[in-house]
Amino acid sequence: MKILFFVTHNKNKFDEAKVIAEQYKIDLQWLNIEYEEIQADSIEEIARESCNKILEKKPYLKNKRFFLEDAGLFIDSLNDFPGPYSAYVFRTIGNNGILSLMKNKRKRDAYFKSVVALYTKGHVKLFEGITRGKITKEIRGNKGFGFDPIFLPEESEQTFGEINISTKNKFSHRFKSVNRLLSSL
Amino acid sequence: MKILFFVTHNKNKFDEAKVIAEQYKIDLQWLNIEYEEIQADSIEEIARESCNKILEKKPYLKNKRFFLEDAGLFIDSLNDFPGPYSAYVFRTIGNNGILSLMKNKRKRDAYFKSVVALYTKGHVKLFEGITRGKITKEIRGNKGFGFDPIFLPEESEQTFGEINISTKNKFSHRFKSVNRLLSSL
Repeated sequence: MKILFFVTHNKNKFDEAKVIAEQYKIDLQWLNIEYEEIQADSIEEIARESCNKILEKKPYLKNKRFFLEDAGLFIDSLNDFPGPYSAYVFRTIGNNGILSLMKNKRKRDAYFKSVVALYTKGHVKLFEGITRGKITKEIRGNKGFGFDPIFLPEESEQTFGEINISTKNKFSHRFKSVNRLLSSL
Repeated sequence: MKILFFVTHNKNKFDEAKVIAEQYKIDLQWLNIEYEEIQADSIEEIARESCNKILEKKPYLKNKRFFLEDAGLFIDSLNDFPGPYSAYVFRTIGNNGILSLMKNKRKRDAYFKSVVALYTKGHVKLFEGITRGKITKEIRGNKGFGFDPIFLPEESEQTFGEINISTKNKFSHRFKSVNRLLSSL
């Protein structure tokens, strides 16, 4: 069985990926390591650079295979805000802040993007997952996390905050990126 | 005359500092170098780490003295948003975005903070400048840059967008931090 490390602080993210990995007979192991993220307007750049930061801190990983994941919510009419800074924006102004910014906006299109960066044999490869949808006019549901309760995916009549995790995992941005990575191995 | 380098992309920032430096008989020189900024909730941490990034890129600076500056707008009722990500937030949602978030907020206190990180003899020293004030209810003035037109400093009846640069420099956050640095040398 192939071994692969997932570098993340988030136990939930690891558990979700573990289930997918088992289908591909990959032995996914959790690596809970602190690492620096750079400021950049693209999560691709941040994810790629994070691999280098991890290798600087843990040189023994140079001969291993590992991946990390970064994600963000990109809202068309807000010039892709909050994008790469979604976690910070959620911590400060939250869902109500986004709803204030979207008040009176007719165009409510947005997408969640997840980027997985895989390090293997000295190289970094990126895998992307996108789920398109709309920003709701009010908070709907209390499941999921972050901006889930104000995001209505195209494939659903319920927000990510209203569906349970196993349904969400069928078409979430993170499922798509992780699945792309795992199926490539 | 002592030589000191200011690492910045912003010619205006350099020109402002140059005027102050002359009063202290310091020969301020402009270094326009690209460097990475990390993600962190404090601009102190970002500024300190940026010195290290610059030294990694330009090792010849190890025997020189240089400084850089980072600044942000911190709004009390928004949990200090936009803080360290002020430049990104300005580029995406702008002054109108902040005004939407502040609609119906009675408590409008905010402050601009500037942090200067000085590298000298293997050490980094930080100097801080804070200007307190309030977020206006509408955009006032077209001078300055960034969030200046929605920030009314305590010392003034005009926003930073309504006063000219020489008046602004008498009590701006950046004047305070740069002046503290230069007077310490």
